[in-house]
Amino acid sequence: MTASLRLGIAGLGTVGIGVVKIVRQQATLLSARTGTQITISAVSARTKGKDRGVSLAGYDWEDDPVKLATRDDLDVYVELMGGTDGPAKASVEAALKAGKDVVTANKAMLAVHGQALAELAEEHGRVIRYEAAVAGGIPVIKALTEGLAGNEITRVMGVMNGTCNYILTRMEKAGLTYEEAFAEADGLGYVEADPTLDVGGIDAGHKLAILSAIAFGTKPDFDGIELEGITRVSIEDIRAAADMEYRIKLLGVAQRTGRGLEQRMQPCLVPANSPLGQLEGGTNMVVIEGHAVEQIVLRGPGAGEGPTASAVMGDVCDIARGFRLPVFGQPATTLEAAKSARSELPAPYYLRMTLLDKPGALAKIAAILGNSGISIDRMRQYGHDDTNAPVLIVTHKTSRAALDEALAAMGQTDVVMAPPVALRIEHV
Amino acid sequence: MTASLRLGIAGLGTVGIGVVKIVRQQATLLSARTGTQITISAVSARTKGKDRGVSLAGYDWEDDPVKLATRDDLDVYVELMGGTDGPAKASVEAALKAGKDVVTANKAMLAVHGQALAELAEEHGRVIRYEAAVAGGIPVIKALTEGLAGNEITRVMGVMNGTCNYILTRMEKAGLTYEEAFAEADGLGYVEADPTLDVGGIDAGHKLAILSAIAFGTKPDFDGIELEGITRVSIEDIRAAADMEYRIKLLGVAQRTGRGLEQRMQPCLVPANSPLGQLEGGTNMVVIEGHAVEQIVLRGPGAGEGPTASAVMGDVCDIARGFRLPVFGQPATTLEAAKSARSELPAPYYLRMTLLDKPGALAKIAAILGNSGISIDRMRQYGHDDTNAPVLIVTHKTSRAALDEALAAMGQTDVVMAPPVALRIEHV
Repeated sequence: MTASLRLGIAGLGTVGIGVVKIVRQQATLLSARTGTQITISAVSARTKGKDRGVSLAGYDWEDDPVKLATRDDLDVYVELMGGTDGPAKASVEAALKAGKDVVTANKAMLAVHGQALAELAEEHGRVIRYEAAVAGGIPVIKALTEGLAGNEITRVMGVMNGTCNYILTRMEKAGLTYEEAFAEADGLGYVEADPTLDVGGIDAGHKLAILSAIAFGTKPDFDGIELEGITRVSIEDIRAAADMEYRIKLLGVAQRTGRGLEQRMQPCLVPANSPLGQLEGGTNMVVIEGHAVEQIVLRGPGAGEGPTASAVMGDVCDIARGFRLPVFGQPATTLEAAKSARSELPAPYYLRMTLLDKPGALAKIAAILGNSGISIDRMRQYGHDDTNAPVLIVTHKTSRAALDEALAAMGQTDVVMAPPVALRIEHV
Repeated sequence: MTASLRLGIAGLGTVGIGVVKIVRQQATLLSARTGTQITISAVSARTKGKDRGVSLAGYDWEDDPVKLATRDDLDVYVELMGGTDGPAKASVEAALKAGKDVVTANKAMLAVHGQALAELAEEHGRVIRYEAAVAGGIPVIKALTEGLAGNEITRVMGVMNGTCNYILTRMEKAGLTYEEAFAEADGLGYVEADPTLDVGGIDAGHKLAILSAIAFGTKPDFDGIELEGITRVSIEDIRAAADMEYRIKLLGVAQRTGRGLEQRMQPCLVPANSPLGQLEGGTNMVVIEGHAVEQIVLRGPGAGEGPTASAVMGDVCDIARGFRLPVFGQPATTLEAAKSARSELPAPYYLRMTLLDKPGALAKIAAILGNSGISIDRMRQYGHDDTNAPVLIVTHKTSRAALDEALAAMGQTDVVMAPPVALRIEHV
């Protein structure tokens, strides 16, 4: 036991402290498994004095993460501060240039600057590992990049934001409105300081951009994602979906189509009895489909001290074992620019609308759908007390373009009381 | 692109042919991902002339796998013949001694001879990789050995024999008896030539022994597994379990207890709405619990050409990328001998019995359970036409020893018509 691997950790929040705990408490296990003494040389965080519930004795302190990242007594720089730019990016760049490997949990930085960082890393012969950036404790980056390396990946799907899934689950189970469920999640500390990151689908979109790059050999393309959050999901839709044996999930889907790479992160209906439909609370799930493996489903905690630290330490152990591979699984210079294709593939859709209750109203809607070549799979009209009739329609597969045409035509009629809700249905 | 990795494949059944197809059809993808030209130098199988639906042109043929394994133009020996001993073991040993890395799907060989083979491999500085040996296409060996390397693993569970799960699912869904469901599975080609391997739980037990070794740093100990197959699972138990919202699965569980390593592969009841309970047909599922990661659930096809070849190729790609690690995740010489502990941990149990329908019969049973310190959680007596009353009992947690004592005492009474069925209940 002579080999050693010296870490510098920037960011001592939940995840950083989780990593310190594992390094301190599992030293015997880690050295048995990696043949290496994994130690911490120095740490950095915003506030020095704070009691963090674990001893930092023996670690040097750096106020400046860039200084930390370039220390001579460091082999691996562990970036756990977060943020797309700023100190996170500056310190990671500094670490790579100084010849350090990098482990990070920073999905935003990788989704937006991943290509440039990967090129920089590979130019300097360094690795960037980021298992903790996607789906918390689930070793999904490893599964996709390594375990399934023999597959042409055909589709990647996932529920990857625990906060959104918690809110949607609470709306369904407790009958809460979106606002009530959001307030509850916020009170429990589940929501980011900028809530848009969670409920706007941005955080989940960052994760999808990373998975897409690996799966399809394309440059990470966060801007190419068709992105919609959960803020417009209503309790009426949750209930109506449940009534038709569906559940609404903030679902990410990436797949190649004839025209390019389709990446979507949006509220979708999934069958209530499917693995995705049964996913509750903060748990994450990723579905990977490949030409050989068919379908793999991975499920686990999407956040939290232990799970995220577990993912960081998996990366650290890989580096200790000498595993080295390009950041996105193949050299960054060989990644293609993604040609983004917006929802080209047809799908069934869920439509909810309120019709004026007068003779011929439903016939008008049915005619409009027919004119756009959309056929109806299931339709329900609910009992009602006033002059408005709630109507649900599940269509057969249709293109988004045909659907948009039909929705526009409905708006021209005098029977639709408000813009209809249209949500895609994904069968897994 | 100068590096190359040359394979020799022994065994051209379903999996072998699947591997040949991936190497031939995905050459561009494989070289992009590994920076290595992966080629096949030679192959071996029992029958040479046979049409296997894929061209073997350009590959040398060897009748003798040992000769194949030791060829000079080979970097990796891929053993896909199967069998605990015989040509599989002889050729793997020869390959390691000749300085070749080994990739195999052979669970029986590893469960029984894994320790000796690992020592041999590490003595010669070679790796043995075996992702395909456990749970088909699911990259579970990788998740456990690498992704979760920062965890003290606390429990590993799994449904890992698709044939058994198919039979149990068909019994429940179609109301078939065990014999009928077995015949159906056999007709579909799902059952091994020696059916005991499947329905006797041996195949699944081999897989559990491998997972245990990695999880707990112990020598593979197949003989230490408390092993029971599904041949005694009756349609009555399937129905009664369903009635109490459970499903019966052939479930493997490995965990450390105060007294040693508990390894069980036996029919268990799991909640019908749990991930394991919802698993149907030939799909496999593995649950891994660790001190940091909490719980990860992995699900995917447990067998078949594509999925198993995907797992083999994951290993080949790792070797091409230069990833090297000890066979069971830490050096074979550091693995402890497993001290096997038989069902020490208390659990709830399901009991089904037929009582003579006379006053006081049920009271006698309840008294016997009480005397053994076992309390009843739920009890059901079913309507009946004759003098016998079917009774189901779900106990609170009890030790197996207390339960065995109670079962023995029940046998001494004059009210129990046949030995009661007792199955463990696992909550995941």
